[in-house]
Amino acid sequence: MSGFKITKKSKKSRARLGILETASGIVETPCLVPVATQAAVKALTNEQVLETKTQILICNTFHLHLRPGESIVKGAGGLHKFMNWDRPLMTDSGGFQVFSLGFGRDFGLGKIVKNNLSLPVRKGQQPKLLKINNDGVIFTSFVDGRKVFLGPKESIKIQEKLGADIIFTFDECTPPNADHEYTKKSLVKTHKWARVCLEAKKSKQMLFGIVQGGRYSDLREESAKFVNSLGFDGFGIGGEFGNGKKEMTSMIRRVASNLKENRPRHLLGIGHLEDMELVIKEGIDTFDCSVPTHYARHGTVFTSKGRLDLDKPGFLNDKNPIDKNCSCFVCQNYSRAYLAHLLRAKEINALSLLTFHNLYFFNSFVERIKEKIKNGKL
Amino acid sequence: MSGFKITKKSKKSRARLGILETASGIVETPCLVPVATQAAVKALTNEQVLETKTQILICNTFHLHLRPGESIVKGAGGLHKFMNWDRPLMTDSGGFQVFSLGFGRDFGLGKIVKNNLSLPVRKGQQPKLLKINNDGVIFTSFVDGRKVFLGPKESIKIQEKLGADIIFTFDECTPPNADHEYTKKSLVKTHKWARVCLEAKKSKQMLFGIVQGGRYSDLREESAKFVNSLGFDGFGIGGEFGNGKKEMTSMIRRVASNLKENRPRHLLGIGHLEDMELVIKEGIDTFDCSVPTHYARHGTVFTSKGRLDLDKPGFLNDKNPIDKNCSCFVCQNYSRAYLAHLLRAKEINALSLLTFHNLYFFNSFVERIKEKIKNGKL
Repeated sequence: MSGFKITKKSKKSRARLGILETASGIVETPCLVPVATQAAVKALTNEQVLETKTQILICNTFHLHLRPGESIVKGAGGLHKFMNWDRPLMTDSGGFQVFSLGFGRDFGLGKIVKNNLSLPVRKGQQPKLLKINNDGVIFTSFVDGRKVFLGPKESIKIQEKLGADIIFTFDECTPPNADHEYTKKSLVKTHKWARVCLEAKKSKQMLFGIVQGGRYSDLREESAKFVNSLGFDGFGIGGEFGNGKKEMTSMIRRVASNLKENRPRHLLGIGHLEDMELVIKEGIDTFDCSVPTHYARHGTVFTSKGRLDLDKPGFLNDKNPIDKNCSCFVCQNYSRAYLAHLLRAKEINALSLLTFHNLYFFNSFVERIKEKIKNGKL
Repeated sequence: MSGFKITKKSKKSRARLGILETASGIVETPCLVPVATQAAVKALTNEQVLETKTQILICNTFHLHLRPGESIVKGAGGLHKFMNWDRPLMTDSGGFQVFSLGFGRDFGLGKIVKNNLSLPVRKGQQPKLLKINNDGVIFTSFVDGRKVFLGPKESIKIQEKLGADIIFTFDECTPPNADHEYTKKSLVKTHKWARVCLEAKKSKQMLFGIVQGGRYSDLREESAKFVNSLGFDGFGIGGEFGNGKKEMTSMIRRVASNLKENRPRHLLGIGHLEDMELVIKEGIDTFDCSVPTHYARHGTVFTSKGRLDLDKPGFLNDKNPIDKNCSCFVCQNYSRAYLAHLLRAKEINALSLLTFHNLYFFNSFVERIKEKIKNGKL
């Protein structure tokens, strides 16, 4: 029932078209996976999300474990039923939170703040808000302050209770400033955890193994080979790849060349619109991205002519839609003037309307890349 | 093109069914008028508002004057086009803001804080944040701190530029603690302003004259007779009526009995669900109400078995919809558990979903009252 089928391979690049079959339906790849961290795409109802041409969502194990707790989700009939989304769903494993609540917070680093490699993380150094040991991570819950332990077994158990179609192994997502020694040591742990996850899983959910290795190509290759050798239904590629697009693409190429061709490859947390074609060309099938939703809530919309910050002066008199070439309902019905007014007036629906447009725009962008592959132009 | 036709009169009460014809279509009365203060129903897109069975909205002249300004709205083609709402629209005149930013703020009073009559307002007393004189009111803008003058002529000019189908005269909405002397003096001003509005209006918009008089039945009767004697297309009934439902209904009865029968009567700012049948029985045709939208944003939903505060413990395990008897899309698709989770997780879409339900519920509630009138049961 679950599986992956490549329907076309590009001759000019490593791009491919595919059908990812899950227990809740198919996903035509390449495909953007919008982020629904707490079982909701921020500012949209799930009915609206469907209308943005979204095929699949990714929720967050760490957040859902803390609130409302996986037992409540399971009691409600699982994540699909709980959130009224009968299409494919992923949950990520919580590994990224190890990074973002740990070193990321300590050093002000994150997916968005790149290129800050001035603070090397050395062997044995521990982030302040959590403790990483060989079995997992101890967090302090941001919801109620209690201590929470999360390791590979725990992550799988939680993800099984949540019941998404695709789940991920629990990894340590090393910060971009981690040195080779730290990253290597971390990788040993991540690989050990990958095995534990595979053994712990009892459900029929698809389990994707995560490749790490930071910005070190030898470690990336080692990780890809190791993860590839286990029996995963697909692969996740996590972490940072270093500076610049070139490094990113060559690193993804190296990783992908060491992964079984007929298994789906998910890139965890892509950055920006301009990265999409690059990673798809390297054989990435799916990728999650918080940019369209995150930027919308800060007043920034994406158009075929670049970004617009609707909070800036000048838009209150602009009768144009966000993008004349966009066929989303926001662009069909609302002017920049009205949207700029709503933002200034702090109206909640501004966030809904901008999020809708951005998601629709991103999904349409990926559709055009798919067309290119179909027509042999990528 | 614009007008009002009574299609059925109740034999058991003063309730009536009617068709209010506006330049943007008809409104079947009695009818709730949801509040879209800043040209948006808070937390909903206007497409969603339509799906709640809403027929007409009321926007706020005071707010839209300050932000984005009526010139921008006019430049966008008027309020209907600006906000993408091609159905009937009202704008209120700004008179209520005279109250709520003046005495209301000084004494912590408002529509919701009733029964606080311990601080009588005396002759000559002025609220702190604004100055009322015989020509109008000087406000300090909460947007940019500039001084703004708003009087009857200004209000009409702004409302003409905004371009709603139904506009209101500029009045002083006296606070519930105003004494007879203050209220009488205020009424002289309100009546003078009513005439000024009538003369100032050049557009074909329907203009409703506002009856005031506070909690003094002699002043209410005087006001109703005076406003009725001018050539308004309909009537607004504003302000407070004193304590308790009985006082409210007998006061509305007294006012309504002095108004032309074949003109629509709008009650400005009704309080709660349980008031609706009472005021409709006294011959009220339309009424605006911020309760469904306001309460939703604070986690409270209305059901056929009373209110629920979804923020309270216990709902996270509740698989029931908000109301089993409600046919809105939220009740068809989402559980109390999920909605309670979204509220706790501070997800924006919680506000959208609860607002949708509440508006749908209120509109359905009024529909049932209409049915009762139709069937001779009210």
